[in-house]
Amino acid sequence: MSNETIITIVGNLTDDPELRFTPSGAALARFSIASTPRRFDKAAGEYVDGDTLFLRATAWRQVAENVAESLQRGQRVIATGRLRQSNWETPEGDKRSSIDLEVDEIGPSLTFATAKVTKATRAAKTSGNPDDPWASANREPVTAGTAANSTAGGGDPWTRQGMEEPPF
Amino acid sequence: MSNETIITIVGNLTDDPELRFTPSGAALARFSIASTPRRFDKAAGEYVDGDTLFLRATAWRQVAENVAESLQRGQRVIATGRLRQSNWETPEGDKRSSIDLEVDEIGPSLTFATAKVTKATRAAKTSGNPDDPWASANREPVTAGTAANSTAGGGDPWTRQGMEEPPF
Amino acid sequence: MSNETIITIVGNLTDDPELRFTPSGAALARFSIASTPRRFDKAAGEYVDGDTLFLRATAWRQVAENVAESLQRGQRVIATGRLRQSNWETPEGDKRSSIDLEVDEIGPSLTFATAKVTKATRAAKTSGNPDDPWASANREPVTAGTAANSTAGGGDPWTRQGMEEPPF
Amino acid sequence: MSNETIITIVGNLTDDPELRFTPSGAALARFSIASTPRRFDKAAGEYVDGDTLFLRATAWRQVAENVAESLQRGQRVIATGRLRQSNWETPEGDKRSSIDLEVDEIGPSLTFATAKVTKATRAAKTSGNPDDPWASANREPVTAGTAANSTAGGGDPWTRQGMEEPPF
Repeated sequence: MSNETIITIVGNLTDDPELRFTPSGAALARFSIASTPRRFDKAAGEYVDGDTLFLRATAWRQVAENVAESLQRGQRVIATGRLRQSNWETPEGDKRSSIDLEVDEIGPSLTFATAKVTKATRAAKTSGNPDDPWASANREPVTAGTAANSTAGGGDPWTRQGMEEPPF
Repeated sequence: MSNETIITIVGNLTDDPELRFTPSGAALARFSIASTPRRFDKAAGEYVDGDTLFLRATAWRQVAENVAESLQRGQRVIATGRLRQSNWETPEGDKRSSIDLEVDEIGPSLTFATAKVTKATRAAKTSGNPDDPWASANREPVTAGTAANSTAGGGDPWTRQGMEEPPF
Repeated sequence: MSNETIITIVGNLTDDPELRFTPSGAALARFSIASTPRRFDKAAGEYVDGDTLFLRATAWRQVAENVAESLQRGQRVIATGRLRQSNWETPEGDKRSSIDLEVDEIGPSLTFATAKVTKATRAAKTSGNPDDPWASANREPVTAGTAANSTAGGGDPWTRQGMEEPPF
Repeated sequence: MSNETIITIVGNLTDDPELRFTPSGAALARFSIASTPRRFDKAAGEYVDGDTLFLRATAWRQVAENVAESLQRGQRVIATGRLRQSNWETPEGDKRSSIDLEVDEIGPSLTFATAKVTKATRAAKTSGNPDDPWASANREPVTAGTAANSTAGGGDPWTRQGMEEPPF
């Protein structure tokens, strides 16, 4: 995919993530992230809150399941992914659109918290192909028939890179 | 701060984070992140690894302590922050420079793992001001005398945003 | 400002930029950017368009004037800035919100075009402080009384950095 | 390509871009971008420069030619692309590595300048496929035999998106 509009957002979950499954068995998690910038008010001599940005987010497959198992309302997260626009019509025929985040990677922020991390062992069984997590299955989840049965492939992504030696 | 060069990197820790303290008591954690892109090779019909990028990273204060307590060699993380260049001379007088990451936020990736998140309770005691985490203390850690004694201020950042209502 | 949600978008202007002035004389330019991702469809063996993202954008002061003078409908641009959410109520009392881009830097893309660049000479007269382009004037433009009279300061930003020597 | 480390940098060219051609005729442009952050010094009550980051950058094909034709030493640019690490050995056998920017999109910044933009008309003749600008030709330029002869395809990317109607 080229020319995606990629963002990273840091903020707090406005509610517990909501986990669902497509007819073919692919998991998706929906949640909203509230991000409030802080700026230094020179006149007041202190930091003040800016306007909060609320961004709806969707995660898929293994990430969705791990999000639902790990994250809760109020927790601070880092998420990176691509902005997606949805367009629809109201019953009255008015056009609406919204901009959401399709999550590529997400995790709990360690700014105000610690985390006990556990490698997910069910990856090969329930997730789609992590090498191409945003293929057609994402766009038409109800027809994502084969995604749930594909294997992860490519060795063990948890340890694959960590064992290499950096050049310094 | 304006005109920072901001990046988000997703990759695996090449080693356990190394935790140190400045003379004034500010914590800093050092670690390297190995990030390997994957691209689809049309000729071969499969995904192949690109060249691994190794980026040295530094986190400060409370984040540093939480990183040291939470993350280990091989784990996949998401980190966002600013690129910083260091210049130095070798004993032979050759000029060297390197580009590192000054971490703003970091967390374990939930792509292949779950996490049990615990709110850090010692923030007010050991960290600097989270509202301005990259002030002078970062740049001259040995003189960061007051940073360790400042209080977090601004209420409880863990819950502050999560309790607001999104507009949808 | 910390914890801003920063994005870079590449796309085409849907119309000519619209230039306005606040009562105090600060310029603002409004325009929309249409960004269409391309992905490789393995089944079809070719690249196909993804859904277009339309993002409304606002630029301020000198940037606004330069945008209005330089860019036109259909041209491809690169813009970086911060996501901002606006909330309002319809006359019927329904709540609405939208997410827009507050532009920090923008320029014409050289992917399919060339550009003849001319240094803007009126910066000191009409722009606000380029070192802090998103201060209070942006948030309450009608009261941005002093912005239009401040000087750029800090030497000549066009040449300031270019004359330094890189360490390689 | 997935899991690339993507950045946007705003800074000034340290020199005129250097244009070269691979044996197969693909253009590449090399240049360095100097980016200096500005931060507000509360004690001094004014903005001060941070350390300058120098990033070497490479652009390919049509972008390379347009860069060489449009940009000059000292000009401020916005560039977005992917970080790439190069590793090599000195004649003495010491290992070295550097981190560079592989440019996806670049343009002159309109913060302190105006630009007269002209659509490049030679795209179909000299560039590779703009829909997949970072395919194998980039990685082994000397064997990029077919890249120079491929056509742009996919209609006219300059106007393709601009003519669509935004949903607002």
